[in-house]
Amino acid sequence: MAWNAWGEPGQPFSLPSTVLDFLHQVLGPPDKTVKSVRESQVSLRPGDLPPWAADRLKDIVGVRHFRTDYRTRLRHTGGKSLLDLLRRCSGEVSLAPDAVVLPGDHNQVQQVLQVCGNAGVAVVPFGGGTSLVGGVEPLRGPFRAAVALDLGRLRRLVSLDATSMTVRLEAGLRTSEAETLLNARGLTLGNLPQSHAFSTIGGYTATRSSGVHGEFADMVQAMTVATPQGTLRVGRAPASAAGPDLRQLMLGSEGTLGVITEVTCRVHRLPESTHQEAWLFANWGGGLDAVRLLAQAGVRVRKLRLSDEAETFVNASIGNSGQAPAGCLAVVDYAGSAEHVALARETTQRIFGKLVGTEPVSSTVAQEWSRCYEDDPYLRDALLPAGYLAETLETAASWSDLPALYKAVGDRLRSSLARGSRPPIVLCHVSHVYATGASLCFTVVIAAENDPISQWERAKEAAGDTIAAHGGTITHHHAVGADHVPWMQQEVGEVGLEILRAAKRAVDPTGVLNPGKLIP
Amino acid sequence: MAWNAWGEPGQPFSLPSTVLDFLHQVLGPPDKTVKSVRESQVSLRPGDLPPWAADRLKDIVGVRHFRTDYRTRLRHTGGKSLLDLLRRCSGEVSLAPDAVVLPGDHNQVQQVLQVCGNAGVAVVPFGGGTSLVGGVEPLRGPFRAAVALDLGRLRRLVSLDATSMTVRLEAGLRTSEAETLLNARGLTLGNLPQSHAFSTIGGYTATRSSGVHGEFADMVQAMTVATPQGTLRVGRAPASAAGPDLRQLMLGSEGTLGVITEVTCRVHRLPESTHQEAWLFANWGGGLDAVRLLAQAGVRVRKLRLSDEAETFVNASIGNSGQAPAGCLAVVDYAGSAEHVALARETTQRIFGKLVGTEPVSSTVAQEWSRCYEDDPYLRDALLPAGYLAETLETAASWSDLPALYKAVGDRLRSSLARGSRPPIVLCHVSHVYATGASLCFTVVIAAENDPISQWERAKEAAGDTIAAHGGTITHHHAVGADHVPWMQQEVGEVGLEILRAAKRAVDPTGVLNPGKLIP
Repeated sequence: MAWNAWGEPGQPFSLPSTVLDFLHQVLGPPDKTVKSVRESQVSLRPGDLPPWAADRLKDIVGVRHFRTDYRTRLRHTGGKSLLDLLRRCSGEVSLAPDAVVLPGDHNQVQQVLQVCGNAGVAVVPFGGGTSLVGGVEPLRGPFRAAVALDLGRLRRLVSLDATSMTVRLEAGLRTSEAETLLNARGLTLGNLPQSHAFSTIGGYTATRSSGVHGEFADMVQAMTVATPQGTLRVGRAPASAAGPDLRQLMLGSEGTLGVITEVTCRVHRLPESTHQEAWLFANWGGGLDAVRLLAQAGVRVRKLRLSDEAETFVNASIGNSGQAPAGCLAVVDYAGSAEHVALARETTQRIFGKLVGTEPVSSTVAQEWSRCYEDDPYLRDALLPAGYLAETLETAASWSDLPALYKAVGDRLRSSLARGSRPPIVLCHVSHVYATGASLCFTVVIAAENDPISQWERAKEAAGDTIAAHGGTITHHHAVGADHVPWMQQEVGEVGLEILRAAKRAVDPTGVLNPGKLIP
Repeated sequence: MAWNAWGEPGQPFSLPSTVLDFLHQVLGPPDKTVKSVRESQVSLRPGDLPPWAADRLKDIVGVRHFRTDYRTRLRHTGGKSLLDLLRRCSGEVSLAPDAVVLPGDHNQVQQVLQVCGNAGVAVVPFGGGTSLVGGVEPLRGPFRAAVALDLGRLRRLVSLDATSMTVRLEAGLRTSEAETLLNARGLTLGNLPQSHAFSTIGGYTATRSSGVHGEFADMVQAMTVATPQGTLRVGRAPASAAGPDLRQLMLGSEGTLGVITEVTCRVHRLPESTHQEAWLFANWGGGLDAVRLLAQAGVRVRKLRLSDEAETFVNASIGNSGQAPAGCLAVVDYAGSAEHVALARETTQRIFGKLVGTEPVSSTVAQEWSRCYEDDPYLRDALLPAGYLAETLETAASWSDLPALYKAVGDRLRSSLARGSRPPIVLCHVSHVYATGASLCFTVVIAAENDPISQWERAKEAAGDTIAAHGGTITHHHAVGADHVPWMQQEVGEVGLEILRAAKRAVDPTGVLNPGKLIP
């Protein structure tokens, strides 16, 4: 991936002029633009790993896979949040790891953790590097040095169990690679978050990924985890009453309780039939009611997204269709057997039709949405040099709490990011629906002020406080990382934190595993 | 419930003569019969609670709700496993709690735990008392005294959220009571294990209940847990990426990590349409393939049960139908909208029809099975005085591992329980199916030898070792309790156990919460 942007370097992406025109008109001119320094202009502080530990690590992984070169260290300095990119573009990269180690198998990971545990060297697991919450920042905690533990060499499809419909995948495998391997056999993981071209199986597991096709946590059957105290293997059966589900303790542990090296996942057959459609609701409340009823009717869709009025308007204004409809657009994506898709479409028609009293709108709208979906992160990169900052934040709550949460977070973002009389652009969509609630994903676009980093930090803090105060979870699918740590006390309470701390002490007595993440 | 049998005292149940004839013929006459002593003939050792602790507990719950009378203590001596009943019928009740406390709300539970934590008195949470694995045995661990903490007074439906389709229920509420309250509003929990007349919401949560309608764990949205270190509240949203899912740590914690006092559960509308049907497969392998394909096709059924040849034969032989079909019977129960039921039936027809090449068998078979389902535990009671012992044990594994696991456990039960040339009756059914695997539930019927307790203990140990050796989980839906503790090391490994022990120390530093259960 590019060191200072999303995606592969040189990925062709041209910013539509309609977008810039629109932003100029709504947000006015920025105070500054964000141009990146050149890679060679970034200076990293020298590595500070104890020589004996470096020697031991080289012995374990082989000298070729122990890296201290500038280029490799720079590429392991953090993830891909707006703040990450702003910092890196400015050349401020204080946090590069002292070394990057690339173990070749589970046993090497296990040995690396033992050495680092003994040496007091922080270990920061690194998968696809797409964290939006500081999850792969090489924080040192109380230690002098940190290594990034890059899982990129653990990328095998270990075995496929076609009877149980499960696959054993090494943690460093990218989803895009896993999909290629599985698609060739007529199978799919069915978990494709926006980051799927880069993100890894281990990353999904460690961060409780929710792709557009469902929660990854529900797909994980078993996993192997390396810890400084030894190997943990969890998941003997699809379901068990043999005590707490320790899979669910490792899902979301973000490298603080161990390094996931292998995951057994459920696989699905490639769907026989798919269909996408778009619906327009008169307003947000009506749209929320409609998608709630669909979820509660048990209609299984592969993807369902409901945009609020602002997002619907902006997408249409900057999109190819040009036409900006009034109301809230929902995109529904069905997949499965032909009969399943037909029944699901009929049920949607009944539920949505009754509320809206209309047919689905042109299906090109749904297709265009899907096409844009993977481009969004590139759009963010392209806006920076023009002085516009785009970022997302997300939460989830029960259906009852959702309308007030939506209003409160939107209001708070607008008030904390207003520039004089110009409010920021705040867009929102429901990205995942459940029978009992849903997630809200906010996109914010602002014109850069002179200190864009603190400009965004202030807004993020205000939004987080508002989410916590209104009963939402601080994150539905981006994980905690470093950025959400301040809200974990409100999320799980003091007793919950003590349980997490105790679990950590049990597997990581010296505390070297990803310090500063997840657990305050 | 009766002190020495399943269910309410005096529950009318007449043992069909066909059953005894059949058992005589197959198993021969027993060496002894099991007659229960009278309640007044059981002698309990005197309570040994420190007087100051007793006074504090009376202050907290009120003197009326602090019980040391013989009758109440006797009814809190354990659960309803075969071993429990054999011990109690023989008058051997060494383990009665020193007192039974009945707190009236969460705060009282919290205070009781603090007092017991300080006094070094073991606390054994008690819900419906239906444990089949020693989960409510008042073991003392290192302590001199134990109190049973009976949640029977926490039985309110606290609130219903009709928008989010969730209900807040106090932990001591029986499912049968919850269903009555919900059914009146057109709703249902949709979790009806065989014990549902007696078992409680808190019990389901603490033991990871799997009713015939699905896993209870998937229905739990939030919970409140009292611990000696304070209150834990988990579950802010239907799904969250804010670290490990602590709900899943409390689900299955069996009173060792805290006392669950309130649970927020998903509710369903009462189904518009239901249908039950039965299918006959030529053999076990064909039946397993068929139900696997059904689960993997994503067909949602409310209940699916596949009996092996022996269970199919025995059920028919002792049932009213009289006809013993050759093969393996599957019962499928559908519920939902009329369209959903119709589509699910069509899909079943396509999958089963292709494999079996036949129509469903008479639906009276399915109806009879459902009718018998709740009677089975009463049948076990009725067999004891005739000298026949019946018990169940269960496991789950991936589809790939299931055939070998089935054979190994069956063989081991038959060899360890053979009386001369007469093997025991060993029946098995698949009780829950998942896309990636299924559970196996074994029923064993034997003629009592002179020491029936050690007769069954030997068989259980042999079966447990076989399950662990063949990759199954030691329990899919009965929990660990005291009886499955010896296999927890194989279940989660040493690192897994250390995590559980650490979590326990964090919330229960003196170790008073349900000692001897779950964690070796």
